[in-house]
Amino acid sequence: MIFLDAAATTPIRREVLDAMWPYLSGEFGNPSSHHSLGEAAASALAEARTGVAKVLNCRAGEVTFTSGGTEADNLAVKGIALARRAADPSLGRVVISAIEHPAVEESARYLQRVHGFDVDVVPVDNQGLVTVAALRGVLRPETALVSIMYANNEIGTVQPVAELAAVAREHGVPFHTDAVQAAGWLPVDVKALGVDAMSISGHKLGAPKGSGVLFTRGRLRVEPLVHGGGQERGRRSGTENVAGAVALSTALGISNAEQQEQAARVSLLRDAFINRVLQAVPDSMLTGHRSLRLPSVASFCFPGTSGESVLLELERLGVVCSSGSACAAGSDAPSPVLVALGIAPETAQTSVRFSFTSAVTDTELELAAAAVETAVGRVRNLAPQ
Amino acid sequence: MIFLDAAATTPIRREVLDAMWPYLSGEFGNPSSHHSLGEAAASALAEARTGVAKVLNCRAGEVTFTSGGTEADNLAVKGIALARRAADPSLGRVVISAIEHPAVEESARYLQRVHGFDVDVVPVDNQGLVTVAALRGVLRPETALVSIMYANNEIGTVQPVAELAAVAREHGVPFHTDAVQAAGWLPVDVKALGVDAMSISGHKLGAPKGSGVLFTRGRLRVEPLVHGGGQERGRRSGTENVAGAVALSTALGISNAEQQEQAARVSLLRDAFINRVLQAVPDSMLTGHRSLRLPSVASFCFPGTSGESVLLELERLGVVCSSGSACAAGSDAPSPVLVALGIAPETAQTSVRFSFTSAVTDTELELAAAAVETAVGRVRNLAPQ
Repeated sequence: MIFLDAAATTPIRREVLDAMWPYLSGEFGNPSSHHSLGEAAASALAEARTGVAKVLNCRAGEVTFTSGGTEADNLAVKGIALARRAADPSLGRVVISAIEHPAVEESARYLQRVHGFDVDVVPVDNQGLVTVAALRGVLRPETALVSIMYANNEIGTVQPVAELAAVAREHGVPFHTDAVQAAGWLPVDVKALGVDAMSISGHKLGAPKGSGVLFTRGRLRVEPLVHGGGQERGRRSGTENVAGAVALSTALGISNAEQQEQAARVSLLRDAFINRVLQAVPDSMLTGHRSLRLPSVASFCFPGTSGESVLLELERLGVVCSSGSACAAGSDAPSPVLVALGIAPETAQTSVRFSFTSAVTDTELELAAAAVETAVGRVRNLAPQ
Repeated sequence: MIFLDAAATTPIRREVLDAMWPYLSGEFGNPSSHHSLGEAAASALAEARTGVAKVLNCRAGEVTFTSGGTEADNLAVKGIALARRAADPSLGRVVISAIEHPAVEESARYLQRVHGFDVDVVPVDNQGLVTVAALRGVLRPETALVSIMYANNEIGTVQPVAELAAVAREHGVPFHTDAVQAAGWLPVDVKALGVDAMSISGHKLGAPKGSGVLFTRGRLRVEPLVHGGGQERGRRSGTENVAGAVALSTALGISNAEQQEQAARVSLLRDAFINRVLQAVPDSMLTGHRSLRLPSVASFCFPGTSGESVLLELERLGVVCSSGSACAAGSDAPSPVLVALGIAPETAQTSVRFSFTSAVTDTELELAAAAVETAVGRVRNLAPQ
């Protein structure tokens, strides 16, 4: 099997399993307990936090462990907006892009539905880019928060986050970025990016499902999603998932250490794969930006097919990939991300996304490209004319 | 080391590790993915859900996997209250007991602070019991939800949940119970209990930290805490922690299968331990109810000491326990639970809780009781007169 669905989830790295293992076995303490078992757990948690902070170039106290990327996005969007409005009731608007992950989009819609916020949506161009001008166009004195993703999960387009964050900063508005797909592939130095909040998911990086991180800058206040015993400096209550935090920290450290080298290597493989597919499959089109894209994502539409049928054929040929977001898999509606790019709904329904782990090889992608040619040909020959 | 702090957390059971292992290694799929890897994960998740439903005597669709007991409590209290008020704006009050875990209490306070709810607190008697009369006394036509814990984490007192739930039902008010400490030790058949919602935590049962369950009856609506891709029937978004769900289901199944036998066996050991301590330590007092208590919890005050000093002495003597809730460990304030029982704050600060796993033996507890006598004696001899 050639696994090309790494944007949905990744296998746990061996080193990560080794690092978390003690906290699934002998070292089972609760970090809040005041005895040796508890202290061992607390110290593992502190070390995991320091490890994450080192990669993000922030302080350990700015790192909140969560149960995953979706919770981190929810905590950022709802938590920052609600805390800011509590301090200044005029702050009743949030800004998101037109192609956010549902974790951000639905959080904004919750603020609208339950708390009466207005949601301003920044449009994207036909390659999925948010421009500085477009962001300026929606910022208002009432804007409590801007949340624009670092890299898109369906098309791989990478936003000019540093530029966008600088615009928000000029206006005194905190800037959150969902870096769930970016982490491991792009630099995540929060000082260099100038972001005030950033979400990361463990299971996209070779850590297990159930672990995530939210960075929040300095004294930026956050209304918690989960209240209780006051863990994570009061920002996220509940007994900490020590093994998950250790795993995430380890996975982030490894992927960040090899980030530059892997990004360069895999970008070349990606471009060769894109060229092969575009040449081999008539009428195929790349979605998203040609060069400002994740090293790990190649996404296409194959007009005259249905994406789901192509996936089935590909799986028969030993290639596992996705029609887009795993979170929306099974939905009949065309991808809102592709529609936001101006792609016609009937074309959007022919989309297929290939996404790579850092272990991907050229041989695999050569085989995969040949399989794509075969699969699309079969589906088109079967399709009613 | 004699580990008597199982109410804080428990080691992962060997069978649980075995059951979850495939989902930490080869079977790493995302349950939302439409290919063989995703389907294997989805089917493991479905089986875990069925396993939980079987123990709770409910339908699989009534089981929501969460990141832990605290999240489950938050989802129940906030989610049910907000959804009910959205449907009927007159429902602006919630009822909790005076000795809830902070996960429930702080959720109620959040509803008060951010959403303008009123919180009615049912008092407890000096053994920690909520009476039917006391509950009747606070119910109003505007009550959106009652949340009363099944068994208390600090004193072990077990509430008459079936009777209390029946009172709420008479008034047409949904009844939630925090069963985080009860699960594994008491019956958790939601039909027999008559509860509408129940929270369970994995790591109190021999599953890892980061897994929990919320049962919600039938069509009871819940405003999610975490919005996004719509997983868990829209009640809890985010890629499901498959390994955690499998672990929790396995742990709950095992502990439930041996529940009656272990509850009977450990209750006898607990009573012998309580008698030994009360006899050996002058002026010691049991906190909580004498018989309506968790088989696994023995809690005392030792006037003339500080609880923290006794813990330190006990740890030197090889016995690990707690001054009360791990969630409040390190706090200087006397336990609000003990204060609610009418215990003077200076006495409350002398509390020590012993809590057992089902592996506890009489020999361990005999040694522990002797250690308690020694430890309290040492602290009292050191204390200023």
